[in-house]
Amino acid sequence: MSDQAKPLRADARRNQARVLEAAEEILAREGLSASMRTIAKHAGVGLGTIYRHFPTQEALYQAIIVERMRRLIAEADTLRTTDDPGAAFFGFFTRIVDNAKQKKTLADGLADAGIDHKAGLSDIRRQMREAIEALLTHAQQAGAVRQDLHMPEVLALLSATCMAAERNQWPADLQSTALALLFDGFRPR
Amino acid sequence: MSDQAKPLRADARRNQARVLEAAEEILAREGLSASMRTIAKHAGVGLGTIYRHFPTQEALYQAIIVERMRRLIAEADTLRTTDDPGAAFFGFFTRIVDNAKQKKTLADGLADAGIDHKAGLSDIRRQMREAIEALLTHAQQAGAVRQDLHMPEVLALLSATCMAAERNQWPADLQSTALALLFDGFRPR
Repeated sequence: MSDQAKPLRADARRNQARVLEAAEEILAREGLSASMRTIAKHAGVGLGTIYRHFPTQEALYQAIIVERMRRLIAEADTLRTTDDPGAAFFGFFTRIVDNAKQKKTLADGLADAGIDHKAGLSDIRRQMREAIEALLTHAQQAGAVRQDLHMPEVLALLSATCMAAERNQWPADLQSTALALLFDGFRPR
Repeated sequence: MSDQAKPLRADARRNQARVLEAAEEILAREGLSASMRTIAKHAGVGLGTIYRHFPTQEALYQAIIVERMRRLIAEADTLRTTDDPGAAFFGFFTRIVDNAKQKKTLADGLADAGIDHKAGLSDIRRQMREAIEALLTHAQQAGAVRQDLHMPEVLALLSATCMAAERNQWPADLQSTALALLFDGFRPR
């Protein structure tokens, strides 16, 4: 029986990855109102398979946010090793805004960060905050960012730009000028 | 019959003002999901009276936004006569964010400005943009704001801070530090 269980577990893992991928696509296209049935169809699995991995739509949504944030945090880790800590901090801020614009649901998740401690997301949110803070501290030590810039304001303005970029679908040139203005405010005077 | 109509018209005006005032309070408390029945009850008028003045909930919502924006635009006109054009521009930006935070629905209205031209709001939105632009130009002429700051970025960042202040209910000190950072980005370097 255990011989038979192994390939099943591998199948299950593949199914889970497929459901997550399909759900990302469908949610990006249809927003949070997308049905589990649509996602199952797009993933090519039965509705039962989805519910086995993600008992609720909330669980699926959380898994997607965690997966996206994990990818972004990995980028932050790479940026920390660059030799321009200012560019690394501003670049990561921009990446998060890009992501929010492209992926409707991520902005919602990020906007809630630090305010609404939904079970299962507080851990990845803490990791995201730590990744941002590490880049901020690094940029301040290099003199590229003002010393009196603190995390609450960084998160508040990050949340603000993510929400607006997503909701108003900022064109690329508007986004880059708006962020450049904001970053000038972050620089030492 | 015309003798009877006059007091009725005055009554109607008073009722309309009462409905608008009640609707502002109820919408601030319950958001856009508030029912016409709740608003009628709070205004002390019948449901029929509301529908006579505002045939749809959308019409009522628009009347409230127009009324609020009119009040803000009147403030801008006063600010234009002050002898510190920089403080006037930054002060008006702050007033709009304050208003968005206190009044849930106004932020939604402002966020839509320039993107979604709902009938009946495009005129007041144009007036609001003109009021902001007049203060911006004035502040630039006084050298208090950088010359390369243009209206699209001002409106984008105004919409961003309004949305975040409203949705995340920024505490007063966080809001003032966040806006101070943004305004530093708006100043000549």
